[in-house]
Amino acid sequence: MSKITLLIHCPDASGIIASVTSFIYEHKGNIIYIDQYVDVENKIFFMRLESEFANNAEISVIKEVFRQNIGDRYQMTWQMYTAGAPLKMAIFVSKYDHCLYDILGRYKSNELDVTIPMIISNHENLKPIAESFDIPFYHVPVLKGKKEKAEARHLELLQKEKIDLIVLARYMQIIPPNLIKAFPNRIINIHHSFLPAFAGAKPYHMAYKRGVKIIGATSHYVTEELDAGPIIEQDISRISHSHSINDLILKGRDLEKIVLARGIKLHIARKTLVYNNKTIIFV
Amino acid sequence: MSKITLLIHCPDASGIIASVTSFIYEHKGNIIYIDQYVDVENKIFFMRLESEFANNAEISVIKEVFRQNIGDRYQMTWQMYTAGAPLKMAIFVSKYDHCLYDILGRYKSNELDVTIPMIISNHENLKPIAESFDIPFYHVPVLKGKKEKAEARHLELLQKEKIDLIVLARYMQIIPPNLIKAFPNRIINIHHSFLPAFAGAKPYHMAYKRGVKIIGATSHYVTEELDAGPIIEQDISRISHSHSINDLILKGRDLEKIVLARGIKLHIARKTLVYNNKTIIFV
Amino acid sequence: MSKITLLIHCPDASGIIASVTSFIYEHKGNIIYIDQYVDVENKIFFMRLESEFANNAEISVIKEVFRQNIGDRYQMTWQMYTAGAPLKMAIFVSKYDHCLYDILGRYKSNELDVTIPMIISNHENLKPIAESFDIPFYHVPVLKGKKEKAEARHLELLQKEKIDLIVLARYMQIIPPNLIKAFPNRIINIHHSFLPAFAGAKPYHMAYKRGVKIIGATSHYVTEELDAGPIIEQDISRISHSHSINDLILKGRDLEKIVLARGIKLHIARKTLVYNNKTIIFV
Amino acid sequence: MSKITLLIHCPDASGIIASVTSFIYEHKGNIIYIDQYVDVENKIFFMRLESEFANNAEISVIKEVFRQNIGDRYQMTWQMYTAGAPLKMAIFVSKYDHCLYDILGRYKSNELDVTIPMIISNHENLKPIAESFDIPFYHVPVLKGKKEKAEARHLELLQKEKIDLIVLARYMQIIPPNLIKAFPNRIINIHHSFLPAFAGAKPYHMAYKRGVKIIGATSHYVTEELDAGPIIEQDISRISHSHSINDLILKGRDLEKIVLARGIKLHIARKTLVYNNKTIIFV
Repeated sequence: MSKITLLIHCPDASGIIASVTSFIYEHKGNIIYIDQYVDVENKIFFMRLESEFANNAEISVIKEVFRQNIGDRYQMTWQMYTAGAPLKMAIFVSKYDHCLYDILGRYKSNELDVTIPMIISNHENLKPIAESFDIPFYHVPVLKGKKEKAEARHLELLQKEKIDLIVLARYMQIIPPNLIKAFPNRIINIHHSFLPAFAGAKPYHMAYKRGVKIIGATSHYVTEELDAGPIIEQDISRISHSHSINDLILKGRDLEKIVLARGIKLHIARKTLVYNNKTIIFV
Repeated sequence: MSKITLLIHCPDASGIIASVTSFIYEHKGNIIYIDQYVDVENKIFFMRLESEFANNAEISVIKEVFRQNIGDRYQMTWQMYTAGAPLKMAIFVSKYDHCLYDILGRYKSNELDVTIPMIISNHENLKPIAESFDIPFYHVPVLKGKKEKAEARHLELLQKEKIDLIVLARYMQIIPPNLIKAFPNRIINIHHSFLPAFAGAKPYHMAYKRGVKIIGATSHYVTEELDAGPIIEQDISRISHSHSINDLILKGRDLEKIVLARGIKLHIARKTLVYNNKTIIFV
Repeated sequence: MSKITLLIHCPDASGIIASVTSFIYEHKGNIIYIDQYVDVENKIFFMRLESEFANNAEISVIKEVFRQNIGDRYQMTWQMYTAGAPLKMAIFVSKYDHCLYDILGRYKSNELDVTIPMIISNHENLKPIAESFDIPFYHVPVLKGKKEKAEARHLELLQKEKIDLIVLARYMQIIPPNLIKAFPNRIINIHHSFLPAFAGAKPYHMAYKRGVKIIGATSHYVTEELDAGPIIEQDISRISHSHSINDLILKGRDLEKIVLARGIKLHIARKTLVYNNKTIIFV
Repeated sequence: MSKITLLIHCPDASGIIASVTSFIYEHKGNIIYIDQYVDVENKIFFMRLESEFANNAEISVIKEVFRQNIGDRYQMTWQMYTAGAPLKMAIFVSKYDHCLYDILGRYKSNELDVTIPMIISNHENLKPIAESFDIPFYHVPVLKGKKEKAEARHLELLQKEKIDLIVLARYMQIIPPNLIKAFPNRIINIHHSFLPAFAGAKPYHMAYKRGVKIIGATSHYVTEELDAGPIIEQDISRISHSHSINDLILKGRDLEKIVLARGIKLHIARKTLVYNNKTIIFV
């Protein structure tokens, strides 16, 4: 069996589902997943579909016919992914190690269908972790007034390894516009608050000061506006007056790890679509 | 616009989705919701679909054509609901009033698209509540050795008002097999534990004794085996050693109210399908 | 048995707990609850203590001795509550009825140890609900340019019935400073967002626009700065891209009801202390 | 400063709190945490207290005086812990690696104040993980008919390193009574269900079969009755009909990791007391 995952968005119209599913049927595909959503306000249709085909099916031909008969007809933006090589994922870190340990543990447990060709950091502190997990580590300092140099080095490394996805695992630097443009909706950040509350620096300190009873974490795609990109996943944890800022930081670590890991998994499984600075998450 | 909701289950086969969605398209319907699920183990296909049709569409004709062209072909068990008269819902209670107040409050707030032609109780205690909400109240005692008499009276009342759905809002009597058979997957009970833990009587006492850190509630369709019917919805609440049995009972009230209300809403919205003593919940 | 609940805050110092508990012991009290918290940053000590005394204990004498021997010595701000008449609670509403139904249902179920001498509204819509629950309803219009008149009427009504606690059950008017000053930390509001996210009007619309994956509700004491008072309780509910604004509003109703009810219960049970615009919640 | 943590349980009586806190005060201690709980049914008093003393305080003297003046007087079972060497924790594993990676990641991130002198396994599969984290790994096969041999080896290893706490990180063997007796309330297991639901083998399979809407995990102290020991911590995760058994297993991994880690942390921080097969958790 070969399998395809089809992601679509296009102007809403009658008959799209019938056209797509009939197309699959005519090409002897067996649909194993279908979910759709219509943004009523903006009249946009979104769909995710998984289908199995007999082994001898020529996916490249199917793809071309789909483009001509369906994609163009409905003015679709679409991707048809085949189960092929796993995504190449780069991890950016600074000094915090908990998210890095978590991702690498999951990676080694075969929980994440990726390869990790590199860990990039503006500090050298976490190099030993990279080494103990046998992952190449690149120290790229980000110095005041010399940020372009770092950016160039980042792009060079990422392109050399044909990186598909960048994960900011508590990376404490602003991502410059050029890097964002080179990886649109392909840079996932973990922010340690329940966005949009406490965007920016030191969210646990702000949460403590405000006296909230619940803290959160948010994984999102990185856009030029800080902490304002499309949200992929959020989760929360209860706190009380008796928790110090340090308690919040410690409690928050588990949130950050899980919310980031969920975001990564959704992306890898092609279950996210971005439109209008929001995500459609197919589950 | 007229709207239909279509619920299907049948042996899994290739082309079902294409057939159904093409059928809708050919009859000038606009699909506004589609979700499907395949029970891989038992090879059963499940689908829920909502479609709008132009106002002059003859749903009865569409229904008949669907039966002949699609339903029979795939050996479907299917219902096509049209937005018509709201469901008629009977509420059974005993002495606890919190679930009753909750349901009636939601009803008056137009949160539940039903009519409530009757509240039936084996006690008279809650009659004043029924009266203050202007709902007919029937006192049907369930006496030892005379349970058949109560059962007959129940069936008579339910049939007279053509009741569609029975809600057991902490009704403290076993439902007899005949009544269950007359309302298959149409009697919703709220059990005050996280089933299958603590089935049977006094679940809060058992939870206290076991020292669990979380309590729960479960809404489920009633089957002949006590507390073993298909689960519709569950939720939980954290507790600690410092909570007495009475604290659990009080905390549990909110769980019971919400989990029962969610179960009722899912049923009313035709979002539940039952197969093999489990529910498929389309959300 | 007679019971007292003692709430204390004072500058932190050595020996406070020993002094207070020894005082209770010497007066033949039996401590059944003690919890304390130290705000390390501000060096403030907080304590809640419940104690039972023999029936013939003269609480007024105990109170006076406590003042002289303990309270003054440690510069305490303290209240010693005796189990007496229940709090008098006024409910302010506008047109939304779900929180009102919820509170009145709980009240009738004996879940709230209060009396409710009045429901006040700037509209007449919910008068029938008040009547069906036998609660006096006062229609006090809040008209542009004549807000002082409404405020005067509010104060008059509240003072006449010696109201202890005001609950804003989705009351859609700003509370003026004078009313806040007359009821410091005794006005509880429910805000339909996870504060500080989405303060102000239309939080569900803002949540939808931002594409959050979780919505929340917050009960808090009212202060002059809008939606910025001390938070008593918060809770959340998961949402997805598929939920419309109206879905959020509907899902949020259950959150609002529960978070407001919890806030009311904590206040009634004397389990809240306010300091520095934050609450200490003794559980 | 030197710090003590005092854990007490004894028959309930008047004056215990006053006696203990006055004792601390007389010895110039500063109480920084106090929490107590009375099991009303069994008339047992429980307390946890943290206090700081001046650096030159002789804790051993304080301990002896406490025994004579307080402990014996109230027939207390008590421990007074001083901040000293971290606990020595052994980890038992079989073939599942996710909990092991999680614990070791936390350990390396300085989240767990322990030393880990050994990882013991009945299989060799996870040896490379132990090595990459520089932890001694002991392969102790548990063979049918030769279980006594494994048990003897376990006890030998544990005693040689003076192990304080055993963590069963998805160790798939029954712990024999002798080992339990040697480590009473010092063996923590993670069970992959919401106990008491689905005790025993294959809980995810049972959860799938029953059609529950929520799965859970439970960390508990090991007692002779399987999966029936005192519960330390539980948590849950929502599932739906669409999740396969394998999905439950994958989703459950995160639950298992977090619930086990929380259980370990509570134990290490001396925040657990066991009585009557239940835990008192001081938070």
